[in-house]
Parts: sequence; C-alpha cells; structure tokens
Amino acid sequence: MHYPTPIAKLIESYMKLPGIGAKTAARLAFYTIDMKEDDVTEFAKALISVKRDLHYCDVCGNITESAVCSICQDTSRDKSVVLVVEESKDVMSMEKMREYRGQYHVLHGVLSPMDGTGPDDINITSLIQRLHNDEINEVIIATNATTEGEATAMYLSRLIKPAGIKVTRLAHGLSVGSDIEYADEVTLLKAVEGRREM
Amino acid sequence: MHYPTPIAKLIESYMKLPGIGAKTAARLAFYTIDMKEDDVTEFAKALISVKRDLHYCDVCGNITESAVCSICQDTSRDKSVVLVVEESKDVMSMEKMREYRGQYHVLHGVLSPMDGTGPDDINITSLIQRLHNDEINEVIIATNATTEGEATAMYLSRLIKPAGIKVTRLAHGLSVGSDIEYADEVTLLKAVEGRREM
Repeated sequence: MHYPTPIAKLIESYMKLPGIGAKTAARLAFYTIDMKEDDVTEFAKALISVKRDLHYCDVCGNITESAVCSICQDTSRDKSVVLVVEESKDVMSMEKMREYRGQYHVLHGVLSPMDGTGPDDINITSLIQRLHNDEINEVIIATNATTEGEATAMYLSRLIKPAGIKVTRLAHGLSVGSDIEYADEVTLLKAVEGRREM
Repeated sequence: MHYPTPIAKLIESYMKLPGIGAKTAARLAFYTIDMKEDDVTEFAKALISVKRDLHYCDVCGNITESAVCSICQDTSRDKSVVLVVEESKDVMSMEKMREYRGQYHVLHGVLSPMDGTGPDDINITSLIQRLHNDEINEVIIATNATTEGEATAMYLSRLIKPAGIKVTRLAHGLSVGSDIEYADEVTLLKAVEGRREM
C-alpha cells in the first residue's frame, strides 16, 4: 500500500528541508493533517511570501522587503565600519548582540575551490565598490571559523589592506561559559595566542 | 533588530510543527529562502492539499482521498477480520508488513480519562456498528503498548466479547534483533509469559 497522493507529496516536500529524513517527514505530514486549517493556510502563505517578498539589499546584500534594508537606511548607524558576514542569518546573530552600530556586507557564500566557488561567485565586487565610494575606515571580517571562512578572510584582507583601510578579524578563543577540559587543541592554542593582560 | 515580516511569519509556522523549536525553525526558514521557487510552490500546494483533499473513510476512519478508502474497497481482502489501530499512520505501518489481508478500523485516539477522552470521543460507535452489520469473526486490537493503549484494548475487549466475536491483542515481547541485556523488566516478563514451544 502507498500513502494517498496528497500525503506522499507533502512528505516529499518536507524531505527537501535540511536534517529531515523519511521518517520525520512522514511524522510531520501526518501531524499537518490534524493541524488547524488556518494554521496550515498561514504556513502555505508564509512559504510563498518568503520567495516572493524578500530581496537582497542593493547596498549590503542582506535580506530585506524593500530595495535597501533597514540597517543601510538607518542614518543613526556608523557609516565608517563594515562588518562582512557569510550569510544574512549572521547579520541577525550580530544584531542580537545589540552592541554593533556599523554597517554590514553579506557575501552569500565563501571562497571554496573544492566546490568551484571563486571570488566572482560571491558578493565581493560590490564590497570593493562600497570601499571606493564611501568613507570606510575599518572592515571587520566575520566569516565563520572554518577553513573556507579563514581562506575568504585572508583573501579579503589582502584585497582591502592596500587601499589603506584597517582590516580586522573576530577573536578566536574559548566560548563564554565553556570548560577548558572540553576545548579542542586549536581553539585552546588560539586562546593562548590571543591572551590579554588583565 | 527583528526579522523581516515574511521570515518571522514562516519561522512562526515552522515552530507549530512537533519537535521544532525557535532555532531549528529559523534555520529552516532561511534555508527556504534559498530553495528553488518550484520546490517552495510545490510545498505550499501540498500543505493546502492535505487539508482540502483528504477525508476519513466512511467505513474504517482511515485517511483517504475518496469517500471509502482503497483498503475497504479492495474485494480481494478478508472481510471477516478487523484490526483496530489508534491512528491512520498505524495502518501504513501494518501495510508495510505485507502480510495482513483483513480490514482496519482507526480509532483516532485512545481512551484517556486524564485528558478527558472518553468512549464517545474516539471512533468506537462505528466499530460496534460494523460488528453488528458485517460478518466479522475476529477483532485484532493493535493499540499501542502504552497505559492508555492497554486500557482501550481492555475496554474494547469487554465491549465486543459478549457478542461472541473473537478478540485478540498483538503479542508483547522482545523486538527482533534486540539484546536481552537492554530489554526492560516489563517487556522481559511479557516475553517469558508469552513463550512458545519450539
């Protein structure tokens, strides 16, 4: 026996999401059948809406509903610092900190020769243009602490430094609240190298 | 900073699914933004479709696209045996076995005095009606091996037995491939009680 077509199709759709296998997808699909009609309609509308109503900001590449995102439009923010991240969700994470008041730039990826992603495949050209046109003193590179993230940081640093702009990178070290016992060697090494006088 | 409205709404919808918290919902929402437009449209359509196109079978209560489900319509199946399950997904699990060729009856729940679910709140009346009208010799009760499942099985058994119909319950025992070392005491006890001559 097979699932009735509507369930089979919904299971297939759930399975396209990351980390959701056949069993979880079936569980979610059966759960959906018993959900309130309004909730399911809202869900379907929300799906359509994220594809239709969201665009990349013309200036920084962040996700926005308008042509220019709310951060780039905010005149109270410092225009002289740009923080470079891999993805839009990293912008949200940074904003949760409620400390940083500068600009952002979203690369939408990292350099990854293995996957064939070169400098032209990510949002670097417009970053360089911004550095030329605007009065920017510092670029903070906040790509992930992965091999690709580090390589991209290095590449950007070599590209930007010659223009006389200060380039910085987020500090590596122990997570706040973590045990030294469980820290990996590389993190521990970075924490020692980056030690600060107290 | 808040998420743009379309993302916030999608996160909210994902969070209504079981086992999906705020962080996973955000991850899924951002993933959805980068999914293919067609896949997202299909997903939205599938959601609407499971609510619109699926009904409960008039006979057994199983989920179906038509008035009577394909199992009840199948004339090659044995009409004299009814297997009673809690949910439609249990029917799918039983069918995966490819051995059982009788009828089903879906209760859509179990008796649970704690949650205020009584005999009138689950699909029992129509089961009794079927037993009256059709030539049924055996009712196999396949509710879950939980307290509520056992209580429901007991209740149904007392209700059906006086009509002279054989009532059976699925066997309890060790899962195939499992170690005795890791079996709980109750399962082990049931396995000893239910031992068979070889």
